[in-house]
Amino acid sequence: MGEIQKLSQDEMKRILKETRGKLAAQQQIIKEKKLPVIVLVEGWGASGKGTLISYLIRDLDPRFFQVIPIKSPTKEEKRKPFLCRHMENIPEAGKFVFLDSGWMEETVCDMVDSKCKGKDLKKRFHDIIMFERQLVDNGYLVLKIFVDVSKEEQKARIKGLLSDEDTSWRVGKRDQEQLEDRKKYEKAYGQFIEATNSEKAPWHVIDSAEKGLVELQVCHLLVEGIEKAIQRNEEQVQLQENPFPMVHMPKLSEVSLDKKLTREVYEKELQEAQKKLKKLHNKIYNKGIPVIIAYEGWDAAGKGGNIKRLTSALDARGFEVHPIASPDVHEKNRHYLWRFWNRLPKTGHIAIFDRTWYGRVMVERLEGFCSENDWQRAYHEINEFEKNLTDWGAVVVKFWIHIDKDTQLKRFKEREENPVKRWKITDEDWRNREKWDDYEMAVDEMIEKTSTEFAPWHIIQSNDKLFARIQAINVVIEAIEQKMEQLS
Amino acid sequence: MGEIQKLSQDEMKRILKETRGKLAAQQQIIKEKKLPVIVLVEGWGASGKGTLISYLIRDLDPRFFQVIPIKSPTKEEKRKPFLCRHMENIPEAGKFVFLDSGWMEETVCDMVDSKCKGKDLKKRFHDIIMFERQLVDNGYLVLKIFVDVSKEEQKARIKGLLSDEDTSWRVGKRDQEQLEDRKKYEKAYGQFIEATNSEKAPWHVIDSAEKGLVELQVCHLLVEGIEKAIQRNEEQVQLQENPFPMVHMPKLSEVSLDKKLTREVYEKELQEAQKKLKKLHNKIYNKGIPVIIAYEGWDAAGKGGNIKRLTSALDARGFEVHPIASPDVHEKNRHYLWRFWNRLPKTGHIAIFDRTWYGRVMVERLEGFCSENDWQRAYHEINEFEKNLTDWGAVVVKFWIHIDKDTQLKRFKEREENPVKRWKITDEDWRNREKWDDYEMAVDEMIEKTSTEFAPWHIIQSNDKLFARIQAINVVIEAIEQKMEQLS
Repeated sequence: MGEIQKLSQDEMKRILKETRGKLAAQQQIIKEKKLPVIVLVEGWGASGKGTLISYLIRDLDPRFFQVIPIKSPTKEEKRKPFLCRHMENIPEAGKFVFLDSGWMEETVCDMVDSKCKGKDLKKRFHDIIMFERQLVDNGYLVLKIFVDVSKEEQKARIKGLLSDEDTSWRVGKRDQEQLEDRKKYEKAYGQFIEATNSEKAPWHVIDSAEKGLVELQVCHLLVEGIEKAIQRNEEQVQLQENPFPMVHMPKLSEVSLDKKLTREVYEKELQEAQKKLKKLHNKIYNKGIPVIIAYEGWDAAGKGGNIKRLTSALDARGFEVHPIASPDVHEKNRHYLWRFWNRLPKTGHIAIFDRTWYGRVMVERLEGFCSENDWQRAYHEINEFEKNLTDWGAVVVKFWIHIDKDTQLKRFKEREENPVKRWKITDEDWRNREKWDDYEMAVDEMIEKTSTEFAPWHIIQSNDKLFARIQAINVVIEAIEQKMEQLS
Repeated sequence: MGEIQKLSQDEMKRILKETRGKLAAQQQIIKEKKLPVIVLVEGWGASGKGTLISYLIRDLDPRFFQVIPIKSPTKEEKRKPFLCRHMENIPEAGKFVFLDSGWMEETVCDMVDSKCKGKDLKKRFHDIIMFERQLVDNGYLVLKIFVDVSKEEQKARIKGLLSDEDTSWRVGKRDQEQLEDRKKYEKAYGQFIEATNSEKAPWHVIDSAEKGLVELQVCHLLVEGIEKAIQRNEEQVQLQENPFPMVHMPKLSEVSLDKKLTREVYEKELQEAQKKLKKLHNKIYNKGIPVIIAYEGWDAAGKGGNIKRLTSALDARGFEVHPIASPDVHEKNRHYLWRFWNRLPKTGHIAIFDRTWYGRVMVERLEGFCSENDWQRAYHEINEFEKNLTDWGAVVVKFWIHIDKDTQLKRFKEREENPVKRWKITDEDWRNREKWDDYEMAVDEMIEKTSTEFAPWHIIQSNDKLFARIQAINVVIEAIEQKMEQLS
């Protein structure tokens, strides 16, 4: 934007007015095209981030944007993965979110304080790039602004703020520290920008020396960004290569389903397993290990009963079961993984998902609720999600509760005949059953493409529910024990 | 339940099995009848609350309940009203929530620590009674259990927990303190129970001396409570008398709408008012005063533009605009005020609602989305809600943005003719217009019944949008200044 700097005040005003007019007009387009827009406003303390945001939103309809000031994470937030609270803040389709500031500031503070370095820092950068790419690939515009300010200018502004009691509270400890340790912060900001600059979400460093110019440049970037994003969203997203080590899995048709347990053996084994799991639950709480258990499976495969046998061994205060139905409106309007990020357990807790994020590559794929490009991309996005969880320290266990077609029919009929169970069977179940072969194909593909070494699938043989319950609980026990060994 | 205590072990087991069977069977009824159930499990440390809950949920389908362990409030939570985080935890219709513990423990700790006493404590009790009554009146079952344990027994249990490294983390500072200061806690628990015992949500004190008996008694209470709640929900709720001082307001038809401003005067006054408001925004942030601004008004009355003139004076990091549309599924399944409690500002912040909780007595009333008893009760429930907010220290400003029928028609037509504004007008707007007279009657009644001295309505004359904007912003300024005076 070199030319603009040579403009006269009058010309600048004219261009500014024009650009702001465009931005105001774009609101309607954003709404129509359901474009979600994230504007990350990062930069030095007292560089005028707040003023910039106030300026940007002045012509926007307040019903279509949100400004979110982000502070350092609370204790509770620290018990979730780094990306979690940032994911929670993403806007709905057709809306703006302005972040002051976003995921940069937190990381730069961690860098300066030596809380995040070496391998951890590399991992952090990696996660951020992944996060931004996923957002863009799922239709988001991610506009990243860094407001630069010289040391002298920053000093003068901080002095100005401090001189008025109405504004002095705006100057924090960090701002003062930045003045004292300018070089250290400069280095960290620079390193962050370099490491997280990507084609899909590039950085824009704006010098705040001339006030009007910052607004003009950012306004321009926003207008341009929106235009490009709308165009881009018409195109197919290129699929990523799979970089993760995979576990070879059988096809569903190759899985035998004839294993059985007598009631007697079952009761004995269940008691033993539950006792073990109870002890482990204390241990994971103590060590702060989060556990995520994902249940998928055929209708009437016995997921509910299976989950119940697991939870009845657990301390009720340390787990949560999340039944996943079709998404609510505010969920459908966001990244499809959003509602799962929001339901992650705290460290030391267990989250059990009754149906999961794999809906994307099963029901959403088969019913056409998302595009082919969407579900094809999802395998890798989900692997990345689960990698993020296991890197965070979580144990991730995934179950496909498996039965054959005859067994399903038998159970459907039982449900219809039993008044206490009748609510469990709906017309939709029968409709899904008609698509058994399509689902089997989709499940086979899902298991093949998402059985990573860090989060493999476990196919549970559930023609005999008793056998399935023992099998599942033992898989959970083994996964936790393995984690314990790694840690000791 | 005196007789049960005399039962033999065998008899007890039999009754227990029978009662648990009933509870399991009730799940379907709860689901059908859409009954939300809150079980508050309070009591001494190490009294076995966790074990009790684990027991209660063992036969429940994990998809229909949630156990929520509540700790002392975080810093963020302390920046909201006391009831806020408890309101957030209420279940959806057809589901259970077990709270370990609920709003008692927090209050008792505050009592023992002398953080809440005298007038504040009285107020706290009053709020809790109001909260529970509102829940029950809106169809909730609120079952309050206090698990009692003798000092000796508590001591023995704490010792037991401490002796095992897997369980020792369960013993907190408070538990130890309770042993040392038994009398003090006894008094506080007793006082709390007495003060918050009500017909609609009575306390049940259960002695945990005999283990099996606690479970049996609570299970029985739950079964009985569910039966009664389902019956009770068929009945009309008696309306409460209005205890609040009211402000007399004119009917809409009595409000003149002929005030106008020239563009010149408007620009000048707007600038002055925005400057003032900007300064006040700093002050309220500094003093930690929350501000809640509620916008209601006719379609096309100019709410959006009015809000924009207000927000453009504000620091973007210190306010949020909440556009309120029809509730999402998870919102519709809860107390109608739930989604507003969830959107309250933190201390020092401003929340602007573009349409509000008054939907209950306007659109929901007129479209039959709630029963007559529901909307009739709502006037008082809303007054209580707003009283709670102003008692907390909030400034509450409510606007009815008013225009006449001709002006609306003119604006509707303008919108249809202007391609940039066309999205603003829908068939629903035309349908609502046909019901103008019904709405006018409902709005008159609403304004009459909810113009309390602490949160009066302001009817804004918006035939001239310029006049309306200045009028509204000045009302906000005055309300904040008045609050400042009270504080100084």
